[in-house]
Amino acid sequence: MTDNQKNPAMTPPMGWNSWDCYGASVTEEIVRKNALYMAEHLKAFGWEYIVVDIQWSEPTAENHTYHNFAELEMDAYSRLQPAPNRFPSSAGGKGFGPLSAFVHDLGLKFGIHIMRGIPRQAVHRNTAILGSTVTARQIAAQHSVCPWNTDMYGVDPAREGAQAYYNSLFEQYAEWGVDFVKVDDIANHYPTAEIEQIEQAIRACGRPMVFSISPGPTPLQKAEHLKQHVNMWRITDDFWDHWEQLYDMFERAESWCIHACPGHFPDADMLPVGPILQDYGPDGWTGFTQDEQITMLTLWCMLRSPLMIGGELTGLDAFTRSLLTNPDILEILKHSHSAHPVYRRGEKGREEIVWMATHDTEGYYVALFNADLQEKEITVDIQQLSLPGEYTVTELWTGTDCPSGTRITAVVPAHGAKAYRLHRI
Amino acid sequence: MTDNQKNPAMTPPMGWNSWDCYGASVTEEIVRKNALYMAEHLKAFGWEYIVVDIQWSEPTAENHTYHNFAELEMDAYSRLQPAPNRFPSSAGGKGFGPLSAFVHDLGLKFGIHIMRGIPRQAVHRNTAILGSTVTARQIAAQHSVCPWNTDMYGVDPAREGAQAYYNSLFEQYAEWGVDFVKVDDIANHYPTAEIEQIEQAIRACGRPMVFSISPGPTPLQKAEHLKQHVNMWRITDDFWDHWEQLYDMFERAESWCIHACPGHFPDADMLPVGPILQDYGPDGWTGFTQDEQITMLTLWCMLRSPLMIGGELTGLDAFTRSLLTNPDILEILKHSHSAHPVYRRGEKGREEIVWMATHDTEGYYVALFNADLQEKEITVDIQQLSLPGEYTVTELWTGTDCPSGTRITAVVPAHGAKAYRLHRI
Amino acid sequence: MTDNQKNPAMTPPMGWNSWDCYGASVTEEIVRKNALYMAEHLKAFGWEYIVVDIQWSEPTAENHTYHNFAELEMDAYSRLQPAPNRFPSSAGGKGFGPLSAFVHDLGLKFGIHIMRGIPRQAVHRNTAILGSTVTARQIAAQHSVCPWNTDMYGVDPAREGAQAYYNSLFEQYAEWGVDFVKVDDIANHYPTAEIEQIEQAIRACGRPMVFSISPGPTPLQKAEHLKQHVNMWRITDDFWDHWEQLYDMFERAESWCIHACPGHFPDADMLPVGPILQDYGPDGWTGFTQDEQITMLTLWCMLRSPLMIGGELTGLDAFTRSLLTNPDILEILKHSHSAHPVYRRGEKGREEIVWMATHDTEGYYVALFNADLQEKEITVDIQQLSLPGEYTVTELWTGTDCPSGTRITAVVPAHGAKAYRLHRI
Amino acid sequence: MTDNQKNPAMTPPMGWNSWDCYGASVTEEIVRKNALYMAEHLKAFGWEYIVVDIQWSEPTAENHTYHNFAELEMDAYSRLQPAPNRFPSSAGGKGFGPLSAFVHDLGLKFGIHIMRGIPRQAVHRNTAILGSTVTARQIAAQHSVCPWNTDMYGVDPAREGAQAYYNSLFEQYAEWGVDFVKVDDIANHYPTAEIEQIEQAIRACGRPMVFSISPGPTPLQKAEHLKQHVNMWRITDDFWDHWEQLYDMFERAESWCIHACPGHFPDADMLPVGPILQDYGPDGWTGFTQDEQITMLTLWCMLRSPLMIGGELTGLDAFTRSLLTNPDILEILKHSHSAHPVYRRGEKGREEIVWMATHDTEGYYVALFNADLQEKEITVDIQQLSLPGEYTVTELWTGTDCPSGTRITAVVPAHGAKAYRLHRI
Repeated sequence: MTDNQKNPAMTPPMGWNSWDCYGASVTEEIVRKNALYMAEHLKAFGWEYIVVDIQWSEPTAENHTYHNFAELEMDAYSRLQPAPNRFPSSAGGKGFGPLSAFVHDLGLKFGIHIMRGIPRQAVHRNTAILGSTVTARQIAAQHSVCPWNTDMYGVDPAREGAQAYYNSLFEQYAEWGVDFVKVDDIANHYPTAEIEQIEQAIRACGRPMVFSISPGPTPLQKAEHLKQHVNMWRITDDFWDHWEQLYDMFERAESWCIHACPGHFPDADMLPVGPILQDYGPDGWTGFTQDEQITMLTLWCMLRSPLMIGGELTGLDAFTRSLLTNPDILEILKHSHSAHPVYRRGEKGREEIVWMATHDTEGYYVALFNADLQEKEITVDIQQLSLPGEYTVTELWTGTDCPSGTRITAVVPAHGAKAYRLHRI
Repeated sequence: MTDNQKNPAMTPPMGWNSWDCYGASVTEEIVRKNALYMAEHLKAFGWEYIVVDIQWSEPTAENHTYHNFAELEMDAYSRLQPAPNRFPSSAGGKGFGPLSAFVHDLGLKFGIHIMRGIPRQAVHRNTAILGSTVTARQIAAQHSVCPWNTDMYGVDPAREGAQAYYNSLFEQYAEWGVDFVKVDDIANHYPTAEIEQIEQAIRACGRPMVFSISPGPTPLQKAEHLKQHVNMWRITDDFWDHWEQLYDMFERAESWCIHACPGHFPDADMLPVGPILQDYGPDGWTGFTQDEQITMLTLWCMLRSPLMIGGELTGLDAFTRSLLTNPDILEILKHSHSAHPVYRRGEKGREEIVWMATHDTEGYYVALFNADLQEKEITVDIQQLSLPGEYTVTELWTGTDCPSGTRITAVVPAHGAKAYRLHRI
Repeated sequence: MTDNQKNPAMTPPMGWNSWDCYGASVTEEIVRKNALYMAEHLKAFGWEYIVVDIQWSEPTAENHTYHNFAELEMDAYSRLQPAPNRFPSSAGGKGFGPLSAFVHDLGLKFGIHIMRGIPRQAVHRNTAILGSTVTARQIAAQHSVCPWNTDMYGVDPAREGAQAYYNSLFEQYAEWGVDFVKVDDIANHYPTAEIEQIEQAIRACGRPMVFSISPGPTPLQKAEHLKQHVNMWRITDDFWDHWEQLYDMFERAESWCIHACPGHFPDADMLPVGPILQDYGPDGWTGFTQDEQITMLTLWCMLRSPLMIGGELTGLDAFTRSLLTNPDILEILKHSHSAHPVYRRGEKGREEIVWMATHDTEGYYVALFNADLQEKEITVDIQQLSLPGEYTVTELWTGTDCPSGTRITAVVPAHGAKAYRLHRI
Repeated sequence: MTDNQKNPAMTPPMGWNSWDCYGASVTEEIVRKNALYMAEHLKAFGWEYIVVDIQWSEPTAENHTYHNFAELEMDAYSRLQPAPNRFPSSAGGKGFGPLSAFVHDLGLKFGIHIMRGIPRQAVHRNTAILGSTVTARQIAAQHSVCPWNTDMYGVDPAREGAQAYYNSLFEQYAEWGVDFVKVDDIANHYPTAEIEQIEQAIRACGRPMVFSISPGPTPLQKAEHLKQHVNMWRITDDFWDHWEQLYDMFERAESWCIHACPGHFPDADMLPVGPILQDYGPDGWTGFTQDEQITMLTLWCMLRSPLMIGGELTGLDAFTRSLLTNPDILEILKHSHSAHPVYRRGEKGREEIVWMATHDTEGYYVALFNADLQEKEITVDIQQLSLPGEYTVTELWTGTDCPSGTRITAVVPAHGAKAYRLHRI
């Protein structure tokens, strides 16, 4: 990933992912519906990826709970295929090609989820590997199993045929027109050689693809390796709509902020906004308050985390749409650098937290967060940010121009945030 | 330390400290000689503090090795005083007042070292505490002893009289005209209440003083407390002229860089340059190569570490003087922010390392480091720094203008560094 | 196992196990040959168990290296069966019944090895469980896999059908006439509920069977549970013919000695004596010296470890036969208690080590061990064993009567041992 | 301590110690009173040591709380002396000679407590060391301080003069007629070289003295060193009259039981029975129930722990006297070996616990303990103790003959114990 001309993630990817609303059970119809919505309402703001999450090869998947040992759709070369009952256009061995073409025709990009490894059913049936004389049994890392899903065995990268297997996967994904791959069961335990083997397969397939790894927490000690081999990496386990998880993200963001750079971004996970958990019925709706959602978007943008919407797009309400389509906020994601916390002050769990970032051509961003359960007046002395002189100050969520000078003062709601653009006078 | 008007360390302090060249044995004559040199040759570049390091109350101190349990000069109130045989102007109870006045008359500032706690000899003699009815025995933390020096017992901050004791110390230091206090045996184990008690005594004494704590490593978890209560804190144990220690500082600097801010700076320790270890004879000279010294200064400035010269100033050679008086390099220290590593790449121990920082009004700094034993060509794609557009590029150690554009390329010597100023075209 | 009338291991079991000489590949013919040898030459000295070790259901097993994911012989109820090509008498669904009958007819007892859990192939084929409406998939602990063998998934003891599955196994073993079961992949990580479920199945099957668990080290903290639920438990990982492993056993024996009691014994693993590793050709022979073998037998007997011969019996030489048929030594195993080390003295790795035990009706045993590489004179003051008075002293390996009195003195060979019987005069 | 002829602790020492009832403040008058009582009432049962515990050189000591940095009575050679106001017979430099003679005249033995190290006041005054040209400052381990008492610095055993200092101490103790030394601040952190230096001083002084070390827990890994260099070592921190501490002792006793041998015993600490804490007034009385005290004595005797009475002897009531003078129980202490737990069974914290030991000429001891809060019937199958045949059974606390045979059955009170003597029929 050293040649930036081909790096498909020079800024943090933005898109939609099916997990938060459909678990393992999303269908082609739903994907198309969300793609259409994105093309119409969100694309203009930079949203572009449509990602089909886990177990698209499992015909009977119902929701976020897996069917252990379920039979998966697989080709003769040990490669999982979309289940045709869920993705009808894949019938006849066409895989995700037709769905991908549909997404591309909308001016969007298409992504899929895969599990590290080779299907256990391939191993127990001992099926073939394309481009190799070895069979599935011979490349399986026989004792390497995912702790939460029964689909795969790991692949032992030292075995003959291992690279051929991964190459055969990504060649097919390239044929399908895949632009983004979220590789799961790999980031937290970080099998370095297997990660490099997958990266190698991506490079070899001839089509640029974002290489995303999951689930976190990815070890901080791997930061330099990540910045050479991976586009985005999860910094937590699955993130859901609970304040404790959002609050906890501040500390993780502090640890990772210096490692965000073009092509390589720490990933704070999907945004559980709007209608989520739709696989359990229509009642799912994010548990976050509006202020918490503003806090989340502000922090994700300051950190330059990729943004992946978790809710069913067609059910977004006005607030959520406004949250996701504020161009001034999204500009932080695309045009800032050197973000870092300035301080966390006050009682543990109730702090005021201040971050700053630098705009890539002129001026600065400052974000104020209030972790307390009550609103709080927060004042920042701009000189304390090592910024001399006087500044104009605009609050970006509201578009309000604040008094110019050397201070920023605001009443920040409970669990809420303010985001400012500063220009030097 | 919330009122910046009074914060005496809005930028990282710069000065000279007696430890590296004289250990525990510096004398008034030496201090005066160094102050004169600084006033004449270094002051114009921002150097201003003259700091007398450990055991100035020990009449028989000879070098870096302590005389265990030596009798110390002490007043009736359990307060250590300069040993008059070493600091003649202190005779008659004048303490450091006359020496401090001498330093101030040169337009410089005066600093001293103290050990946390109360002299063991005060405790065993049970002497008085000024401004309190309790005696030395009653405030001593009887089992709290420094692991490397026998002078003191800790003070138990919960005891009546503890604050009075520290107040009595700093009242005297204020009378003497002290501008800087390096408090030792306190940063690594971080006794929070005792640190706050010392800070309180400094604030109460009526004279601004830089509050420096030692030795490191200070725990990273204390970063937020440090940014509220301490001006500078050591991030390592004693730093000497060995490449391994210098190389190791890159990792520590990475951990601490986001916490440097006006008034509060991580301290990478004294600069062991020029003639050091003079207490063992005239043969002491830094073991660092010139390139390693350039690496050190560049890293310290990018990190915004305080700079304290460790060598005997009157013996500086031309190279060392040039090292310490490059205004473009020292400007990084005073006019940058948001410094952080961009990447470390290559085999462990031989990496190329790139840092960037932002100038506080316009443009950027980029530093290239070569940890390898051989010179290495290093190329940085400026776009990878999240900086769009084209830039003029000047190397600051040599003053060379490099080709403008989107790349920086240099052959960096073994263990050496390059420092660049970038202006957007 | 509270009713001793039914406990089949009131003294430590003694027998032969196929692992050390044949790995996974032993055949019926070999088993019969060894049983015949035992009946003729060893039975009179207390040897009685013939144990078929791992993977008797794997048709293609060749040696100590497993064939990953090999097809196993299995019945319709997910139960592994002997591979008929290796155990011809099992053909037609007879299992180990005929072989067991052959062993019983010789006056011996028959044992088998099993892996904890349910065959992976049963799970992926989703076969039936006898006596239950659930299927293999439903009881598999889907992420619980053995780290060194691919045959099984663990069974989740909380699932409906789990007890039924284990019951169905042991009912079949009871029909076959099995007297001893070595359950593998269970002792070191100690899944308590699964262990109790297996014990329950043994009790329910109506036939007394020794319940042996493997591999070690079994956690010492489980000692009390072991003394209620298990007959013998491995205290190390696999033990082979290397002095380091034998030396290391002294420390393990010290930790476990107080927990040996009727029905429940710490297991120091098989005795790798005589011709071992026969699956790789006829050249395998124990690497232990004769003195080391004497040390091993002496320590195993003092500890009251079960004794399982690892070598091919028909190839035993005169020395090995004498080692295994010394009635005075074997009597320690059956008629002593309260064994413990008295001291280890000298440089680490070269100590003299002294153990004592009490005979169950009269007198004592004392063992001297020399861990040094050179012979050493060792003298024990009997009074130091808390034994007053004077004693007759007989060395048991040689049958030599030593001088009576209050001391034992011997020149003990390098890595060798002496074992004494003491009678009070 | 290899020559048993001179080992003064071939069986576990029994005596009285002043700590539990008087803390640091015992006086000569009290010591004499207790010695007289012991000679009259307890000596016949084996009790013989009278031990003066901590700070006998502190003139102002009042109770269990120390006066930090108090002036201590000391001779010109840095050696602490009895405070004459508390020990009048020591006046005129006679030390403990007269008191020791008084105790000896009663047919008893005399012991003292010392802290490891050299008085801090000697170090700060830099006083002389007898038999050496070095002074106190030179042998002090300047950073080695006790965490709970301010009297001493450790001695650095590598320094010249260190052995001379310890020799000078024990020469004086030998002159005084000391028979037992409890060395404090040494067992838990186990400074091996300093322990050996003290042992060497004891051996060199020409008088047998029991070498006892404190406080625990002594590290189990030091067992072999202890059995060569120390007579008794504490296995816990201070033991007081709380059930939790008594219950906890079962686990410690299990760990240490195999290491009790003539001359070397694990020490479960003083027996807090009868009137304790007399330095706070006459109301102190053990918080243990009578059954708990029976449990304690039984466990201590089975373990062969030294027995040191903690209560004021002259205030013992009839029960406590009976507890301490049961010859059948005390015989376990002197005539058993190979004690060990047989099992702990039942819910954690409420177990029934069974121990066995072997009499040194004939028969066995069995102890039943009930950790539960309710009485419980406990039955032991004697065969489970590896003891074949039938036995007569006598309960030792009550002297009751129980039914002969192969079982022991008793209703054991809450927190109580039964102790049995078995003879084979």
